[in-house]
Amino acid sequence: MSQPASAPPIRAVFLDFMGTCLDWHSSVVRALPASLTEEARSDLALVWRQAFFDDIRSRPPGEAPEDIDVVHERLLKRLLEEGPRTDVAHAFSDASITEAVQAWHQMTAWQDVYAGLAAVREQLGVEVFVLANGTTRLQLDLVRSSGLAPVIDMLFSSQLLGVAKPTPEIYKRALDLVGLGRDGPGGAVMVAAHAYDLRAAKAVGLRTVYIRRWTDDLDETDDELLVRENDGYVLDDFAGLAEVLKKMQSASDGH
Amino acid sequence: MSQPASAPPIRAVFLDFMGTCLDWHSSVVRALPASLTEEARSDLALVWRQAFFDDIRSRPPGEAPEDIDVVHERLLKRLLEEGPRTDVAHAFSDASITEAVQAWHQMTAWQDVYAGLAAVREQLGVEVFVLANGTTRLQLDLVRSSGLAPVIDMLFSSQLLGVAKPTPEIYKRALDLVGLGRDGPGGAVMVAAHAYDLRAAKAVGLRTVYIRRWTDDLDETDDELLVRENDGYVLDDFAGLAEVLKKMQSASDGH
Repeated sequence: MSQPASAPPIRAVFLDFMGTCLDWHSSVVRALPASLTEEARSDLALVWRQAFFDDIRSRPPGEAPEDIDVVHERLLKRLLEEGPRTDVAHAFSDASITEAVQAWHQMTAWQDVYAGLAAVREQLGVEVFVLANGTTRLQLDLVRSSGLAPVIDMLFSSQLLGVAKPTPEIYKRALDLVGLGRDGPGGAVMVAAHAYDLRAAKAVGLRTVYIRRWTDDLDETDDELLVRENDGYVLDDFAGLAEVLKKMQSASDGH
Repeated sequence: MSQPASAPPIRAVFLDFMGTCLDWHSSVVRALPASLTEEARSDLALVWRQAFFDDIRSRPPGEAPEDIDVVHERLLKRLLEEGPRTDVAHAFSDASITEAVQAWHQMTAWQDVYAGLAAVREQLGVEVFVLANGTTRLQLDLVRSSGLAPVIDMLFSSQLLGVAKPTPEIYKRALDLVGLGRDGPGGAVMVAAHAYDLRAAKAVGLRTVYIRRWTDDLDETDDELLVRENDGYVLDDFAGLAEVLKKMQSASDGH
């Protein structure tokens, strides 16, 4: 009798970084002007982040990625000058805008990430890569501030690959570079707190795991859709990631 | 009174990898056909390696780099079929050629490297990057087999950067990616066991340290030239690298 068709074994995990692994919100809120209330700073950080994703989605696919510091500065100035947050513009100087932009280079990891990734590496023997929009300098700074270096094998930035997520080419280039171009993309899993990222990864053929983070994907309110799109692999944090990958692996083995 | 002109502080060390950090010779000799004597295998490995460097130098600058496995296979077949080692061709099958090519993916580090780099990181607080010709898959394999991951921040391959050493563009791109493009290349040091690499790095403005390895640069026999070209910074291994970098740093501070 023929065996059920089996997918290739899981050999690599690609991680989105900010939001998915890293708590960008705390460091950005801390860097916004102290003259604003905590609530105003949290709100501004969330609006700024959403503007960043809206900006990514508005770009023509395949366009060369812009320096993330430049994007962050442009978007913050726009939302302070043109809205929707002109009411807090009075609190900013050139120096405080620079300070806020630089805050995106220093973040701590969500507390579940280090142990979750260590378990993935130990129990599945897979390699773990960052695949995220931004510059390589940004990723080096974030790996340092987050202390995640021991659980990450390599950093792939959109700057390095010359194209940004969600353009299909970035996932394909990353697969080629780690040696999974020939075996097919099913040997890789994309892990992210952003549905747009996982939709693009899945379209290229990667498997996907969605991580719910309260700071991200505020416009993705249909939880059933997320569960369906990611074949049920939706988690609240990285604690159960190793178990999910093992389940994914054995499902594709036909067990 | 005016101070002596000072170079920027050293912030990054770029490492060549094979030969400089890694003992390619032992693993390649081990993978060559057991029917050959140890001496014949060692000789073949050295001739193969030299053919690799001759091949790099024969290429037009800026040409997109070829997959290193493909290059290794082509060069081994040529030296067995056309010379200068037709006398050992009888010992090879297709399988043993493949095995020999794959041996370049598994190497241990020279015993001085880990401690030497750990001292550099600790005493100078600089970042350490691999900048080497080859594929990213190759570098990932070599970092794993050598155990050097904890002392390396990032891997830059010629495949990733789209251009090979000694083309100037590869050094410039690496500097830009780590954030040293603006401060100037004097904030970076290239460390290699290959004079051609250091000549190219120096022409771009990086500082250089030459490491003598018995396996590499067999055609660079003028030691005084090497000392002169590298401003006296020539070492027998990585043990004294931290001290040399501190001396280099204070010399450029004008002390």
